[in-house]
Amino acid sequence: MICMGVDSSGKTASVAVMEEDKLLYEEFANAGLTHSQTLMPMIAHALDRTGLTPAQIDLYADSAGPRSFTGLRIALAAVKGLAQPFATPCAPVSTLEALAWNVAGEGTVICALDARRGEVYWAAFDGMTHARLVPDQASPLAQMDIFCGNCKKPVFFVGDGADLCYNRYDNSLEIIHLPHPQLYPRGAGLCLAGVALHRRGESVSPALLVPRYLRLSQAERQRAESGKE
Amino acid sequence: MICMGVDSSGKTASVAVMEEDKLLYEEFANAGLTHSQTLMPMIAHALDRTGLTPAQIDLYADSAGPRSFTGLRIALAAVKGLAQPFATPCAPVSTLEALAWNVAGEGTVICALDARRGEVYWAAFDGMTHARLVPDQASPLAQMDIFCGNCKKPVFFVGDGADLCYNRYDNSLEIIHLPHPQLYPRGAGLCLAGVALHRRGESVSPALLVPRYLRLSQAERQRAESGKE
Repeated sequence: MICMGVDSSGKTASVAVMEEDKLLYEEFANAGLTHSQTLMPMIAHALDRTGLTPAQIDLYADSAGPRSFTGLRIALAAVKGLAQPFATPCAPVSTLEALAWNVAGEGTVICALDARRGEVYWAAFDGMTHARLVPDQASPLAQMDIFCGNCKKPVFFVGDGADLCYNRYDNSLEIIHLPHPQLYPRGAGLCLAGVALHRRGESVSPALLVPRYLRLSQAERQRAESGKE
Repeated sequence: MICMGVDSSGKTASVAVMEEDKLLYEEFANAGLTHSQTLMPMIAHALDRTGLTPAQIDLYADSAGPRSFTGLRIALAAVKGLAQPFATPCAPVSTLEALAWNVAGEGTVICALDARRGEVYWAAFDGMTHARLVPDQASPLAQMDIFCGNCKKPVFFVGDGADLCYNRYDNSLEIIHLPHPQLYPRGAGLCLAGVALHRRGESVSPALLVPRYLRLSQAERQRAESGKE
């Protein structure tokens, strides 16, 4: 099975191609360029470097959120466009679950993305098996305290919320600090989580691929708060 | 400090750009293409995606070996060419040390590259600090047994020699199996190890950048065995 993983959920972007468990290609960009301009060229480049065409991709692993509403839509639209002509299955991968695959080791992986407004998108996974321990959620940092307080094993923080967590927990938890290149979503992590999701029978047709925001958008929130329909 | 890391020591190739501890860009290719055709375009692509010119690179981290004699020369020649006009310092990074940066966790990282002829290039590092525990060496697998037998912590095997090690030690050691994308040399690992080397005052001028083979080449070995000069 050949899987292409695509992420543009945050400030960084990444595209990877894996064949079974083997990484054929990965590109990661964190240079402040606009995803809408760079993501399709990155996908084209990945196909070119691997000598593949979209007809040969067996599965797309799309970073489905939570995270930037616009960023998620850019990868989603690209994947839908590539997958539709061949009815290629698409795996809507939790951005947090993909991040967990950046780590392998004895401990608890807490994937945390800064959700602003005093909140964090987070989930937790076992560092050895990558089995999920906590569902994806948007919550105030204070809600992580209860989970972290019960962590008996060393903790890895992944994601751009890692700094918030270091500041909060550095004195109370045994934290394994990761080098920066391991903190951000990678195409390979999307593929690894996406293939597992597909094997559980949870991939969908391109038409049914939708983002998972976990929160209302700013516009929806403002409308709800103003009481208008 | 802006560092470009370049590896084409084995079957895979990778180029990365880091600014201080932040990864700006990374490309990894494992699609069986010839390094002599792909490495310079990968470097040009990395410069293009980061908007940098060779004049703006403060340090090159070159994968200096041990490994494929030809592969090492390809990255070395490319780096020398880029660094020479600006007298940019070059860090000759042990390919094994760069590999150690793929891992962060409680345990011992054993970096192993298949050296053929029943031998392995290997070295060992602490998983938390990346401090070196064993110098780079080419030896029969049997020589690793003594070191591995004394490992009290869990062991991570990195490099394309990992499979040999799994077969040999799976019943006797507590091994943490890494996903395939973490097994191969990455540009980011080159940068992380290269900047550390530079800060220890061990970087060199482009002219003094040389590979570290650890063994004689096949041609040299055959000449020595035949007794000719």
